[in-house]
Amino acid sequence: MLTFEQCAQWLRDRDDFLIINHCNPDGDALCSAAALCRGLRAMGKTAWVLENPETPERYADRVREYLAGGGYEPRWIISTDLADENIIQRNASDLKGKIDLAIDHHPSNTGYAAQGLVMPRYASCGEIIYALLCLLCGGIDEETAALLYIAVTTDTGCFRYKNTTPDTLRTGAALLEAGAPIDLNRTLFMKKKRSRLALESMIIDGLDFFMDGEAVIGVITAEMLEKSGATDDDMDDIASVCGQVQGVETSITVRQNAAEQWKISVRTGQYANANRICAEFGGGGHGMASGATIKGELDDVIAAVKKAVEKHWKEQ
Amino acid sequence: MLTFEQCAQWLRDRDDFLIINHCNPDGDALCSAAALCRGLRAMGKTAWVLENPETPERYADRVREYLAGGGYEPRWIISTDLADENIIQRNASDLKGKIDLAIDHHPSNTGYAAQGLVMPRYASCGEIIYALLCLLCGGIDEETAALLYIAVTTDTGCFRYKNTTPDTLRTGAALLEAGAPIDLNRTLFMKKKRSRLALESMIIDGLDFFMDGEAVIGVITAEMLEKSGATDDDMDDIASVCGQVQGVETSITVRQNAAEQWKISVRTGQYANANRICAEFGGGGHGMASGATIKGELDDVIAAVKKAVEKHWKEQ
Repeated sequence: MLTFEQCAQWLRDRDDFLIINHCNPDGDALCSAAALCRGLRAMGKTAWVLENPETPERYADRVREYLAGGGYEPRWIISTDLADENIIQRNASDLKGKIDLAIDHHPSNTGYAAQGLVMPRYASCGEIIYALLCLLCGGIDEETAALLYIAVTTDTGCFRYKNTTPDTLRTGAALLEAGAPIDLNRTLFMKKKRSRLALESMIIDGLDFFMDGEAVIGVITAEMLEKSGATDDDMDDIASVCGQVQGVETSITVRQNAAEQWKISVRTGQYANANRICAEFGGGGHGMASGATIKGELDDVIAAVKKAVEKHWKEQ
Repeated sequence: MLTFEQCAQWLRDRDDFLIINHCNPDGDALCSAAALCRGLRAMGKTAWVLENPETPERYADRVREYLAGGGYEPRWIISTDLADENIIQRNASDLKGKIDLAIDHHPSNTGYAAQGLVMPRYASCGEIIYALLCLLCGGIDEETAALLYIAVTTDTGCFRYKNTTPDTLRTGAALLEAGAPIDLNRTLFMKKKRSRLALESMIIDGLDFFMDGEAVIGVITAEMLEKSGATDDDMDDIASVCGQVQGVETSITVRQNAAEQWKISVRTGQYANANRICAEFGGGGHGMASGATIKGELDDVIAAVKKAVEKHWKEQ
């Protein structure tokens, strides 16, 4: 495992980089990659980011200028925010086993890369890139600040989530001072598309409380998606809609995938283990956030989910 | 106008304080007062906060131990977060003209107090109290950190609003380090009561877009309040519900006050001046956020509001 200074030296000694990412990429993954690319270019290096086919619309313009065209043959492969090669971006599976440097903040990083700057105490990959670019370039320009601000705020819910540390807030302060526009918050955290709002409203109207109101199920049917006009781009963190109800410890979002197929997302607080609930259906994940896929009619799925929640209630 | 050091000396030289606030108090007002009171007590002073009859339920427990009982006769009156004596808390009108020290961050502070520590560059009164207590006490305890964290995050929407500065984020970092629990965010910014969610859902279902979707009216009728079970405690920042729609520059919330009486809250972006729109109905406020009261039937009120918005569209 490299230190910050060792990683900086590793980059200074080399040239011709390609930066890659994970599938289903978020603002931290995409903007950390773009900021690193921009910083390497400011040092006079050749660096490109591999286009990610799943890039959400709202980040596409911001990262476009870093995307490698066909024919670029890099000497070194760097990954950002990638915990595990199994979730590498969809068009990069041929790069598995060939990653030279991983820059990541996930405690679960599998150590797949030849070298790693893996720092689990950071809430976002963006904070690591910021510290690295300060070492490499002595500072950052306005656009890099904006990219890193998006990265940091994405992974911390704009400094609201539990992973936010004093250092996260200090990095946020430094990024604002370096020119990140505070207006980014408006676009990223305070505005919702009409289709998303319509869908949220339908979910809330149909909330099904049980366990004396401490557990809740919210359903998203194909019909609701059609009626609201919601697309994949509206689904970001959709499981949090049910979880926001005061007094709810466990929330389950049941989303239709196909005619009789449902994806469940379970979020738990102090009473239950999401992983064990989802294991009942062959799924899994983390203790506080897990998922599974269930086949059947909606009423049966809901009954089965309720039974599983009751079974594992207050087990911890 | 006092400097921080002059204000600190003013407080060191005195004893027997009563701290008062503004009507319709928020987390910044209430928790700034409580934190100052706690800090003064830590210095060995006698200090109390005058109970505010409009204190929202969610802050009541936190500030209770600072509330003055009957019979306390203070020597010095301090206000926190109070821009103007005209909006003094409802049970303190006899203290108008008698305030010895105002600690405030509003640029519009009228200078009503004998002495003032008025610092408009701060996003919250809590940041000023933090700096003051560092001077007075050399630091703060965990509970003071929690109080000030609530104060700072209330006025900045947990670091999302435009008024957030690098210093705000650094104060946030210092407060977390001093023991403010990051879990406060969950309670204050990530959870909503069922009644509030039900009301939001009804507002969204009834949104009325005009000006090619760049303006929107949301209505809250007495019937909706009854159906959702929403109370005054659910109304915090309710005007932001309509304003969150992507692409909307001007939003108007029309809320029923009485049988044929409606309170309108106008929020504008770059196209219109909220103050001028509300002036059409004898109301007013700021350029980006204003209010007015209109009498009449709902349909007529909506038509009149639309006409006023059209009249002042792109006037700026």
